[in-house]
Amino acid sequence: MTIKIYGDIYSGNCYKIKLAAAQLQIPHDWVSINILNNETQTDSFLQKNPNGKVPLLELADGTCLSESNAILHYLAEGSSLLPEERLYHAQVLQWLFFEQYSHEPYIATARYIVRYLRRPAEHEERLQQKMTPGYHALDVMEQHLKQHQFFVAERYTIADIGLYAYTHVAHEGGFDLNAYPAIRAWLQRVEQQTGYLSMQAFDQQS
Amino acid sequence: MTIKIYGDIYSGNCYKIKLAAAQLQIPHDWVSINILNNETQTDSFLQKNPNGKVPLLELADGTCLSESNAILHYLAEGSSLLPEERLYHAQVLQWLFFEQYSHEPYIATARYIVRYLRRPAEHEERLQQKMTPGYHALDVMEQHLKQHQFFVAERYTIADIGLYAYTHVAHEGGFDLNAYPAIRAWLQRVEQQTGYLSMQAFDQQS
Repeated sequence: MTIKIYGDIYSGNCYKIKLAAAQLQIPHDWVSINILNNETQTDSFLQKNPNGKVPLLELADGTCLSESNAILHYLAEGSSLLPEERLYHAQVLQWLFFEQYSHEPYIATARYIVRYLRRPAEHEERLQQKMTPGYHALDVMEQHLKQHQFFVAERYTIADIGLYAYTHVAHEGGFDLNAYPAIRAWLQRVEQQTGYLSMQAFDQQS
Repeated sequence: MTIKIYGDIYSGNCYKIKLAAAQLQIPHDWVSINILNNETQTDSFLQKNPNGKVPLLELADGTCLSESNAILHYLAEGSSLLPEERLYHAQVLQWLFFEQYSHEPYIATARYIVRYLRRPAEHEERLQQKMTPGYHALDVMEQHLKQHQFFVAERYTIADIGLYAYTHVAHEGGFDLNAYPAIRAWLQRVEQQTGYLSMQAFDQQS
């Protein structure tokens, strides 16, 4: 029995896992989950993840692991995508925690309101509130990428995968990357990595 | 030159670092930062952390590391507070990401509004919005702690330190832990660990 990954390929948090698993050539079954149909809130899913979220990794023995960036860490451990050196390792985690706390709640949530909820009027104020902190996260990234090729150790790691996932679709939530040339150049560097596939390409594969 | 930790001891994110450093007996200088006086937004602080947040770890060579849970990981690596086994390591991170995404933005922010901002009327609606997701995070913790002594591997790790920080002061943000006996028993277990000190005790020490 192989590992299972439960997710929605157009969710950046899930796409991260699919991209890392592909680049690490980890055999797995992808179990498609429809968030809008509340498939993360069924009794059987909540038994696997009481927090009711995808992505979710299920190991061959049934053990489940949640939180996209913890799953990335699990999959990448021992590979070139996760530096072993103590400071680099912590810096990878620094950017992954930055992603979940200062980036995803604004950039991903804005995209969710626009793409999944189809921008209903009652969410417009909430959408607008995402803009300033979302651009602040992009500012922090731009400042770093002006001086570095990648986020940690000048090479491609899961910190890049984690931040790429929602940054490359930030425009779908209304963010304009024109003023962020270093981010745009970095997005291209990520897309040139061996084994890179887009959300659409993964979707057509499955 | 020793390491420096910049923080406010009554911020749970900063207290985590102080508690771990004390329990790991890591010599350090504690640099007190007043968040309300915008001391995280000065030019000199932003040079150290462009994201403008505490806690911040500064190594002897001037390298800075931000994000409380990445700092915890850095300090605890190689110690009993961070299991090396691949799955346990990822489970520690799972709970730390859960803490930053599903717990801290509600339980810590509610406390911030009440304790630091003194509950102004204009934040009352925002405060109320923190209650349901905050209690949901507590529900997830309670369910886990009904069956486990600690969050990972049945022993005290940085996952416990990370979640303890804001859970033990959740009442200061208006959360009632009476319905959470497993959480309350776990809080006591954390407080019985060697080298444990409260926020107040650290404050009086400095």
